[in-house]
Amino acid sequence: RGWIVTSYDGLQGWVLVFLIGIVTACFAAGVDIAAEWGSDLKDGYCTESLRLNRNFCCANITNNGLDLNDDNKCDKWNSWSQAIRIHDESDAKLFDFFAYVVVALLFATGSALLVKYNSLYARPSSKSSARIENIEPKRKELKPYAAGSGIPEVKTILSGFVIRGFLGIRTLWIKAISLAMVVSAGMTLGKEGPFVHIACCIGNVLSRLFHKYNKNEGKRREILSASAAAGVSVAFAAPIGGVLFSLEEVSYYFPSKTLCRSFFCAIVAAVSLKLIDPFNTGKIVMFQVSYNKDWHVFEIVNFLILGVLGGLFGASLCKLILLYTKYIRNRTWLKQWPVVEVMMVVVITAAVNFGNKYTRMSNTELIFGLFSECTNEKEHDGLCDNSFNGMFEAFYLLGLALISKFLTCVITFGIRVPAGIFIPALLVGACFGRMLGIVMQYLTMTYPDFPIYSTVCNQNINGDCVIPGVYAMVGAAASLAGVTRSTVSLTVIMFELTGTLTYVLPIMTAIMISKWVADGIIKHGIYDLLIDLGGHPYLDSKTEYDGANTTFTTTLDLCQRDLEVIDVNDLNTIGELKNKLKKLSTSGYSDAGFPIVDNKILVGYIASTELEHALSLAHGSDNLTRCYFKDENVIDKSANFTAYVNQAPLTISKNASLEIVLELFKKLGLRYVIVVDRGQYVGVINKKRLLIYLRQITGKDMNNTL
Amino acid sequence: RGWIVTSYDGLQGWVLVFLIGIVTACFAAGVDIAAEWGSDLKDGYCTESLRLNRNFCCANITNNGLDLNDDNKCDKWNSWSQAIRIHDESDAKLFDFFAYVVVALLFATGSALLVKYNSLYARPSSKSSARIENIEPKRKELKPYAAGSGIPEVKTILSGFVIRGFLGIRTLWIKAISLAMVVSAGMTLGKEGPFVHIACCIGNVLSRLFHKYNKNEGKRREILSASAAAGVSVAFAAPIGGVLFSLEEVSYYFPSKTLCRSFFCAIVAAVSLKLIDPFNTGKIVMFQVSYNKDWHVFEIVNFLILGVLGGLFGASLCKLILLYTKYIRNRTWLKQWPVVEVMMVVVITAAVNFGNKYTRMSNTELIFGLFSECTNEKEHDGLCDNSFNGMFEAFYLLGLALISKFLTCVITFGIRVPAGIFIPALLVGACFGRMLGIVMQYLTMTYPDFPIYSTVCNQNINGDCVIPGVYAMVGAAASLAGVTRSTVSLTVIMFELTGTLTYVLPIMTAIMISKWVADGIIKHGIYDLLIDLGGHPYLDSKTEYDGANTTFTTTLDLCQRDLEVIDVNDLNTIGELKNKLKKLSTSGYSDAGFPIVDNKILVGYIASTELEHALSLAHGSDNLTRCYFKDENVIDKSANFTAYVNQAPLTISKNASLEIVLELFKKLGLRYVIVVDRGQYVGVINKKRLLIYLRQITGKDMNNTL
Repeated sequence: RGWIVTSYDGLQGWVLVFLIGIVTACFAAGVDIAAEWGSDLKDGYCTESLRLNRNFCCANITNNGLDLNDDNKCDKWNSWSQAIRIHDESDAKLFDFFAYVVVALLFATGSALLVKYNSLYARPSSKSSARIENIEPKRKELKPYAAGSGIPEVKTILSGFVIRGFLGIRTLWIKAISLAMVVSAGMTLGKEGPFVHIACCIGNVLSRLFHKYNKNEGKRREILSASAAAGVSVAFAAPIGGVLFSLEEVSYYFPSKTLCRSFFCAIVAAVSLKLIDPFNTGKIVMFQVSYNKDWHVFEIVNFLILGVLGGLFGASLCKLILLYTKYIRNRTWLKQWPVVEVMMVVVITAAVNFGNKYTRMSNTELIFGLFSECTNEKEHDGLCDNSFNGMFEAFYLLGLALISKFLTCVITFGIRVPAGIFIPALLVGACFGRMLGIVMQYLTMTYPDFPIYSTVCNQNINGDCVIPGVYAMVGAAASLAGVTRSTVSLTVIMFELTGTLTYVLPIMTAIMISKWVADGIIKHGIYDLLIDLGGHPYLDSKTEYDGANTTFTTTLDLCQRDLEVIDVNDLNTIGELKNKLKKLSTSGYSDAGFPIVDNKILVGYIASTELEHALSLAHGSDNLTRCYFKDENVIDKSANFTAYVNQAPLTISKNASLEIVLELFKKLGLRYVIVVDRGQYVGVINKKRLLIYLRQITGKDMNNTL
Repeated sequence: RGWIVTSYDGLQGWVLVFLIGIVTACFAAGVDIAAEWGSDLKDGYCTESLRLNRNFCCANITNNGLDLNDDNKCDKWNSWSQAIRIHDESDAKLFDFFAYVVVALLFATGSALLVKYNSLYARPSSKSSARIENIEPKRKELKPYAAGSGIPEVKTILSGFVIRGFLGIRTLWIKAISLAMVVSAGMTLGKEGPFVHIACCIGNVLSRLFHKYNKNEGKRREILSASAAAGVSVAFAAPIGGVLFSLEEVSYYFPSKTLCRSFFCAIVAAVSLKLIDPFNTGKIVMFQVSYNKDWHVFEIVNFLILGVLGGLFGASLCKLILLYTKYIRNRTWLKQWPVVEVMMVVVITAAVNFGNKYTRMSNTELIFGLFSECTNEKEHDGLCDNSFNGMFEAFYLLGLALISKFLTCVITFGIRVPAGIFIPALLVGACFGRMLGIVMQYLTMTYPDFPIYSTVCNQNINGDCVIPGVYAMVGAAASLAGVTRSTVSLTVIMFELTGTLTYVLPIMTAIMISKWVADGIIKHGIYDLLIDLGGHPYLDSKTEYDGANTTFTTTLDLCQRDLEVIDVNDLNTIGELKNKLKKLSTSGYSDAGFPIVDNKILVGYIASTELEHALSLAHGSDNLTRCYFKDENVIDKSANFTAYVNQAPLTISKNASLEIVLELFKKLGLRYVIVVDRGQYVGVINKKRLLIYLRQITGKDMNNTL
């Protein structure tokens, strides 16, 4: 029997991540199917059954479900103009345009309303010090948790803070439904960030079923790391990439055991998705390509250029989003009218997208087309046309698409609907990559004797010396690296997205260059910028605070020495303690606690929540009852608070350097550390206080992070 | 000017890893070329020039340099029997056999002698507490640093200990040369482990050129992590896999900055190797395959079986190696005669290998053949024969190969030559995988109407319903997972080895199953077993010491309370201090130090090495001079030791639990922590002492780790 209990205990975690993987795959499949149906609804509907999307509706005609781009439309699928029988071509086009915009508007507005009317109060958790700094002294505020990418908040939660309701069951449903709607609306946003959030919600909700994980916050965080991996795994069909993304970008503390769990969770999610097969293609690779040629040495220059361009685009995307959010969205009337903002953005996006054949298709279709190699000239809507005019037209339209996608991404990211940044960043990168690819193809075709490439390109003058699709892929990777600053996870995600490994070295090189360029322009990736913008209490374990080495700050300068303490020899009556608690909460550090001293010697620490709890239990006693913090022979059991005291708080000498303090906070995930001088209590360093200090020395004023 | 200095400082690290990448690639290319030449020398020689290997010698005949398996031999290449003009066929075969064994013997003996006569004394470093526990009180011993895989030692070094000379320039050269020789000898060993060691040597040697890294141990360790990634990157042409291997298996502390550096280092190494092109194929992917079919759902059962088999083989390989080393190598006369042991093993291996056409080829050629898909029946030495007899013969010979490789691996791994475990593990896995593949192929061909697979296999009865090569690949991954217990890094390495991503889900599933099965048989992977066997002081950051939660050990039970302390109020004369140092070194904790107290209150800590250094500077003074540890007005500057005292040692309350102590040691990489009770000194917990304790509670006796 004991053996069964032990193995059940060990098995719980595996069962839990197994369930998370399956449920995440189901949600992802649901969102995918709904979004595909909704996306097609902008163009028309299936006469056979409204519930069918275009692929399934025309399934009998096109053998390969993926090939949406052929011009011979199937009979069962009606465009909206056909539905109301407009036969004049220009009228029909105009009507189709209006129908496209209206359907997009309906979807987006519905999504925005759903998000808005399911906002939750940002309650601080009683369990921990979770609180968003800015709102603390003010009245409680409604937070639209389902909006945005969710990754910054998940990162904050994994760093040890609790945001109540952010990973709840309501957020889960709202996010999934509204995500399907905005993706249908064809806005310039992706679903990977929201999928990570959805997966984490699933992880959080399911871990309530298991006692071991319901009670232990640390263990639950490990489960959330695994869930994040499953989220990316289903968003991109990239199980390994998901594990690495969780490791590199999302998680704070990632021990080996979590790695294994995440790996398993990602496999289960990917296999489940493959078995559900939402796209009816039997494949889960999203942008399957099959380049059959290796790269030439002279192309390395182009890949370097793509790296630089990717860094420039990625960093300026980050910067523009930051500036737009700070100075336009947050300072004008837009702040009060999030739904109107969404409606404006979707109308602009739909209107701009409709005019260009490339932007009119869904984002993923466009990326797939840009990545693809050409086997004949008619493929991929003119991208494969090798004539000068065809190439010029493709170049021109892609340039327009690049500009429109870039600008709409800036105004879209951050609005109050679920929105990820991966797909827009990939799109921008794929556009400029393919443009460079077309230029190279033109050059190698027109000047086959140019010395740099003549030796390798002379034999085949029919234009397949360079593959423009490869340039699109490398450009996409570089642009994404500029936005997120991930390296390893990004490389692996690119492989899994495209299913090809031939171009590992170009992609890696471009990613590295892009990261360097982008780091030079703006120091942090988009997620860290958003964490900063949201004012989340997040101590970045990656940043090396250079100031920490140059300014000779000691713990003495850092610590708060004017905090209330509890001396065990004082007459600590209930009334006094309540007073102290009240003082603490007005001082803005209600999540902190009190050091307990015995004649200036530190003997323990009591968290304010623990003290509150203890006081509430001792409530029967009146305000004058004395409370004890030392093991004495106390008659009144309820007034003996010894059990609530942390007898072994972590201490640090007042001579310790800032570097050591940072190490402790980063690696151990502490919330406070007590400064002592030869055993005597000196002061407390709170994480929140430390963060404020670090922002000062890194030159960022607290006022900036509104 | 200041700007230049700053950016040079920031750039140093990148320049360093850039150099490491290039030099590592050069060493790898050198070893590869030498090993290929030496490998071919066992069979014969090139009449044109002895320096040419078979590939280059016959370059004009075979267009594709890789295709060694065609039977039409080229004229320029002579077998040894042709050289001395033996025309009788059976005599020739016998002579070739002898030549094969003799050449292998010569190479292996040379390698073993080289390793033996370049052993170094295992000197403890003066800088740190580096010492191998068992040899400490005894006389100093010669250690053949160039032998073995090197990964366990590198892991130990990265966990914070210094093994002097292990990463030196001499070890580097000896390891590279002797590695090329043993690989030539065709023994059942691989070169990935030694390559990691070689890369780390390069990293260590090159970082001496940069002041910033020469002086700072922590920073040098980050460089070593990056070097390890470069090592795997060149060993397997797996840059991403290398980074992940370094992260998952080798490194102890892997911050985000190191991830980026490792990524860069791995790219540089891989690109350099591609440009050097040692195999003259223009490709760096080792076992390039191009499967064109997806897997069928019914095959998942087979992949699960492969996972279980992989776990069984991997774990029993670990177990047998452990038992063989412990009870046969270390307890018999073999211990005294390492070179004789090498000679015996190589003769056995060569004799066994010669008889079987599969084992006779080099290990990598065999793996390549097993992984390959079949396009016509004549390919790959009968592996593609679809007739019943052909399949039976292949099955039979592969079974023999499996047994012989498995057994020779057990006796080979651990002998005193450079030897990695990756290739043997891959081999074993590929053998049983291909065997299952052949069985499946036979079944689908013979019983095409069997219900489970009839729906998918009916159409194509010519035997290509299942691809036996895929089974070999999955089996190889599973077997490797059973040996090393890596998950993510292994999956990525498998992709990069084969250049295919189609089989990501089967490989991941098999790896996961294999890991579980293997964990059930023997708890640790081969590297952790070897660390344990070598008695290295390594605190595994991955293991969760369950005992830590169940036994209510407090820090009081753990700490040593009988240590000598230095009281600042005592008359600490130089003579007394020297006495204390001597006592400490005889107690077996010479790498520890002394807590400094002031009337029982802890005020600091001085490491024994620091004290030694301070005493040596104060040498002019006689033994009665008083030394000061407190900032007082000391006239004799050389007797003021305050500067050598760590004023802010990390302390922990005597009430703290074992869990917290472990957290501190694991995450902060501490060597000691001081236990205090209300500021008063209680005792010291040394890492070494902690390790002994942990081994006791996990049921492993110290005597076992001889």
